[in-house]
Amino acid sequence: MIDEADRPLHGWRIGFAGLGLMGRPMARNLFTAGAELALWNRTRSVAESMLEPGMRLAGSPAELAGMSDCLVLMLADTEVVDQVLFAPPDGLANGLRPGMLLIDMGTTAVMATRKIAAKLAQTGVDYIDAPVSGGEIGAINASLTIMAGGSEEAIARARPLFAVLGKQFTHVGDVGAGQVAKAANQVIVGLNIGAVAEALSLVRRAGVDLNKVRQALLGGFAGSRILEVHGQRMIDKAFAPGGRVTTQHKDMRQACELAAELGLTLPATELSRRLYQKLIDQGDGDLDHSALIRIFDQPAE
Amino acid sequence: MIDEADRPLHGWRIGFAGLGLMGRPMARNLFTAGAELALWNRTRSVAESMLEPGMRLAGSPAELAGMSDCLVLMLADTEVVDQVLFAPPDGLANGLRPGMLLIDMGTTAVMATRKIAAKLAQTGVDYIDAPVSGGEIGAINASLTIMAGGSEEAIARARPLFAVLGKQFTHVGDVGAGQVAKAANQVIVGLNIGAVAEALSLVRRAGVDLNKVRQALLGGFAGSRILEVHGQRMIDKAFAPGGRVTTQHKDMRQACELAAELGLTLPATELSRRLYQKLIDQGDGDLDHSALIRIFDQPAE
Repeated sequence: MIDEADRPLHGWRIGFAGLGLMGRPMARNLFTAGAELALWNRTRSVAESMLEPGMRLAGSPAELAGMSDCLVLMLADTEVVDQVLFAPPDGLANGLRPGMLLIDMGTTAVMATRKIAAKLAQTGVDYIDAPVSGGEIGAINASLTIMAGGSEEAIARARPLFAVLGKQFTHVGDVGAGQVAKAANQVIVGLNIGAVAEALSLVRRAGVDLNKVRQALLGGFAGSRILEVHGQRMIDKAFAPGGRVTTQHKDMRQACELAAELGLTLPATELSRRLYQKLIDQGDGDLDHSALIRIFDQPAE
Repeated sequence: MIDEADRPLHGWRIGFAGLGLMGRPMARNLFTAGAELALWNRTRSVAESMLEPGMRLAGSPAELAGMSDCLVLMLADTEVVDQVLFAPPDGLANGLRPGMLLIDMGTTAVMATRKIAAKLAQTGVDYIDAPVSGGEIGAINASLTIMAGGSEEAIARARPLFAVLGKQFTHVGDVGAGQVAKAANQVIVGLNIGAVAEALSLVRRAGVDLNKVRQALLGGFAGSRILEVHGQRMIDKAFAPGGRVTTQHKDMRQACELAAELGLTLPATELSRRLYQKLIDQGDGDLDHSALIRIFDQPAE
């Protein structure tokens, strides 16, 4: 006998597109929660490698839509979202049916999100932007923070799915509001990583014990999840991602673009984007974003 | 009958110099804990205004030293520390006796701290640098985070006093290590305030609910004490200090100077120093440091 309480998504037909660092464990959690899961990934072998009995593989985004009632996108960036949705001949939009629920959980530009939602509303599809924070570890442990934009009705439909993937869910506002919150999240994460990196570089150069300083600071106003998690990675020089430098850089660029569209200048965010770019230029793009400390802190070793 | 457990500093003769936003409540907490308290402040009327029966007033730093076995400094900056200690004819150093304990709880430059400690060691004075984080509210509630540098012996002597003033104490290392930790603290606090300011400006300009975004972000990697406390101040536009812009600017300058002395360049810290300077230039120096958001976020109101 299977306990239905352990399978809250029993009866859901979910199509999952984008099986990267975050997407793979998220898709697995949906499957474990009882969903009928169909997978699509641009590089097909990635999807094949995670197939389990009961999961199905879609040959194209349009086919994925045909196999599902609810679609989850966890794609690299706005350009990829646009391609997967609309690229002829077999974009996802070609397979959409009225009444379907489409949830973009990646980090997509705000203005593009609003345009896509308006376009899909014409086919009677409920669109939600629901980007996440918490990194690979949050995806694996189903402890993601989810920030969602969309109508009350769409959000109400999606709640059981969010409950499976995350530990904290906020309905921030209308379509696009989730992406605005995520942009704010990434600005804070990117800049606070920079803050901790500069601070710990100073401590290391001054010859003082990094672990003691981190411990002392965690209890005061400098205390943060970044100091706790990424600060420790910097001290240990443990830069396996986590969240990649290239992703953080893309998010900072997107935040700068959103700011520019709104007539706003964000000097620290712009500086940070340049620093992450420098890190990519020196070949560190695939490391964890906490590797930013390597720019300031290059001991003679 | 007085319960001695409620008066852990009974029998201590403490001289307190520097009765600003932080110093006043800290001195009061020492007095409440049973210490015989002598006060000195450059502007004498400030010390007079907080006198209670049992407290005494010193006419000069040297006189303060003569009235005490343990001295606590909570002064504005390195220059003032230097003057109070060494300015003729009645600097504190003139009143010091072998075996005294001198604790600098302000934010003083690292190199100056090491020099001062070496100088005072010649007169047999135990020197501790023990700067704090937590702001006025932490000083009032005796919930400061204290980062101390000094010898094991000196630290052991000072522990009862630290237990009265703070909720978390870390012995970071030798003399100067407390100030290094504080510099790191201030870099993170100053830059994270900037991060939250830029992020919330973006959210406000995008027309999304600030409170919901703050709430959503607190649970994820963007979560921090700064987002919690200073983020709320930014949303409420409640800029009564807390910690002043001028103080934050001084600390950022000091961190940049320390970095330069160590041959390190900290680009975000330098940018942040310029932004706090801009805030001072536009007349906001006496506001809480969370007022940094006024640089980015100037609605037409």
